[in-house]
Amino acid sequence: MAPPILASPEEYKALIDSVDTFLLDCDGVIYHGANVVPGVKETLQMLRKAGKKIIFVTNNAAKSRPQYLKTFEKLGIEAYTEEIFGSGYAASVYLSSVLKFPKDKRVYVIGEAGLEEELEANGIAHAGGTDPEDKVFMGRDDFACIGSDPSVGAVLCGFDININYKKLAKAFTYLRENEGCLFLLTNQDPTYPTSFSTDDPEHPIKHALFPGSGSISYPLVYASKREPTVIGKPHKPMMDAIIAEHHFDPKRALMVGDNLLTDIQFGINSGVKTLLVLGGVTKREQVFGDQPSDIKPDLVMNSFGDLAVLAEQ
Amino acid sequence: MAPPILASPEEYKALIDSVDTFLLDCDGVIYHGANVVPGVKETLQMLRKAGKKIIFVTNNAAKSRPQYLKTFEKLGIEAYTEEIFGSGYAASVYLSSVLKFPKDKRVYVIGEAGLEEELEANGIAHAGGTDPEDKVFMGRDDFACIGSDPSVGAVLCGFDININYKKLAKAFTYLRENEGCLFLLTNQDPTYPTSFSTDDPEHPIKHALFPGSGSISYPLVYASKREPTVIGKPHKPMMDAIIAEHHFDPKRALMVGDNLLTDIQFGINSGVKTLLVLGGVTKREQVFGDQPSDIKPDLVMNSFGDLAVLAEQ
Repeated sequence: MAPPILASPEEYKALIDSVDTFLLDCDGVIYHGANVVPGVKETLQMLRKAGKKIIFVTNNAAKSRPQYLKTFEKLGIEAYTEEIFGSGYAASVYLSSVLKFPKDKRVYVIGEAGLEEELEANGIAHAGGTDPEDKVFMGRDDFACIGSDPSVGAVLCGFDININYKKLAKAFTYLRENEGCLFLLTNQDPTYPTSFSTDDPEHPIKHALFPGSGSISYPLVYASKREPTVIGKPHKPMMDAIIAEHHFDPKRALMVGDNLLTDIQFGINSGVKTLLVLGGVTKREQVFGDQPSDIKPDLVMNSFGDLAVLAEQ
Repeated sequence: MAPPILASPEEYKALIDSVDTFLLDCDGVIYHGANVVPGVKETLQMLRKAGKKIIFVTNNAAKSRPQYLKTFEKLGIEAYTEEIFGSGYAASVYLSSVLKFPKDKRVYVIGEAGLEEELEANGIAHAGGTDPEDKVFMGRDDFACIGSDPSVGAVLCGFDININYKKLAKAFTYLRENEGCLFLLTNQDPTYPTSFSTDDPEHPIKHALFPGSGSISYPLVYASKREPTVIGKPHKPMMDAIIAEHHFDPKRALMVGDNLLTDIQFGINSGVKTLLVLGGVTKREQVFGDQPSDIKPDLVMNSFGDLAVLAEQ
């Protein structure tokens, strides 16, 4: 059966009354690239006034929470550090609160400064990452310098524009040779969507896709034949990390997103009710067409900003 | 039923009489690292005298055929350029002879000088590879410089110690945006075995594994969601390329190797009789134990060098 599309103020009110914690995907729900979704600012204000908890849930691990906060500020959206859950911060919480990662071990990072900052936020020591010694092109003579390092207790892989063979070779060696070495990915997103200005007056902004975090970590998955713990949506460790910090009742929570494969599947995997918003990456036919997706949201709305009508009443 | 183990001069003679073309894996059959397998030099001489065709078949794509010849020379093994088939040269032959790759198109290479040389041997133009412009760490501002290039008609990915995000981003863009762009991997080997000297007198040589060609190409496979044509053993394009150059009768050929997953499966996939040699990566139990591998060689020998007994007669 197709899920109901909420469209009236009465339906919006019933939804809000049934939810204490709103888990919100960012790109596609709050904004599209540099444009805030109409009505979303008012919706967020209305939810805050009603005492609802708001958590922004994103798979982007390249930005730290303070970096994300700046993005929100630029867009004029009210947000607080503790409300933001990127997959990098979630990895850090998962390591410290869920896995109780030993204080005397380090995490070898394939990732950028944002991911390192998030580890530091939970007092986790790290190696690799932005260390200039690992931003090099190695030769075959350097193989002899790469060996196991008992101080490394985990490999954490996220988006890293400085990915290179030395980083892969070191991470692979730790995964093979360090006893009990954990293997975590911030997320498995195959692509990294980006946009930039062009000189073409007809297409001043170009949207492009490049290889994403999931792709960058695949050499390690394939070479090590190990099954990594994937933190980001749709995987449950992201929710375990959020609940470890926010202690809410999943039955009174709602995951709002525009992507069936990540956001809606994430809610399903974590036992949280789901609301799909249209106008993002999911086409209406994928839910209401003749051959709908197997991934079924509980509820559908045209836009999360539509809730703003309640603010005006 | 377990395959027969050939062990007597009569069995060796019957084998040799039934075969015109010997397809020989290198590491594990001809040599182990820097050590020539005892009896192999004499075996090769004996086969040459008997008018047999010899073809060395290796998945290593980082070395070109002239580079391989030097390795053989160092080991004192008689060999000729046209007898050597690395997966890089096989990719070059497959592109030119089997796929009839257009003369006005270029191959974007993720790979090293050896792979570029092999493409040049068949007059195939290439980009990427050892081009210093692609051996850089790019920033996010450089995304705007990466776009489709209609001159690129194929992406060929092999072992590349200088792998970086710019190469991956360019290759991914060609695979997505260039109409009809082919996608080839030299091989899918997950790991790259190597060895080097150490200062430890008890272990003067250390054997180590690092991520291999297959692992390096996995970001592109995962991000593009495309099924690449894999050239190297156990895949059939390697045999198609060998036959395109050597025109032998597969029914009178024998694939000799120490690896069930690559060498023996390669013979099976290509309709060529197979001989497994023990003492390499395959343990005796994998063939003759209680739970043998599903990959069954036609024949087994302890060592390819055992055939030398015929030379002495």
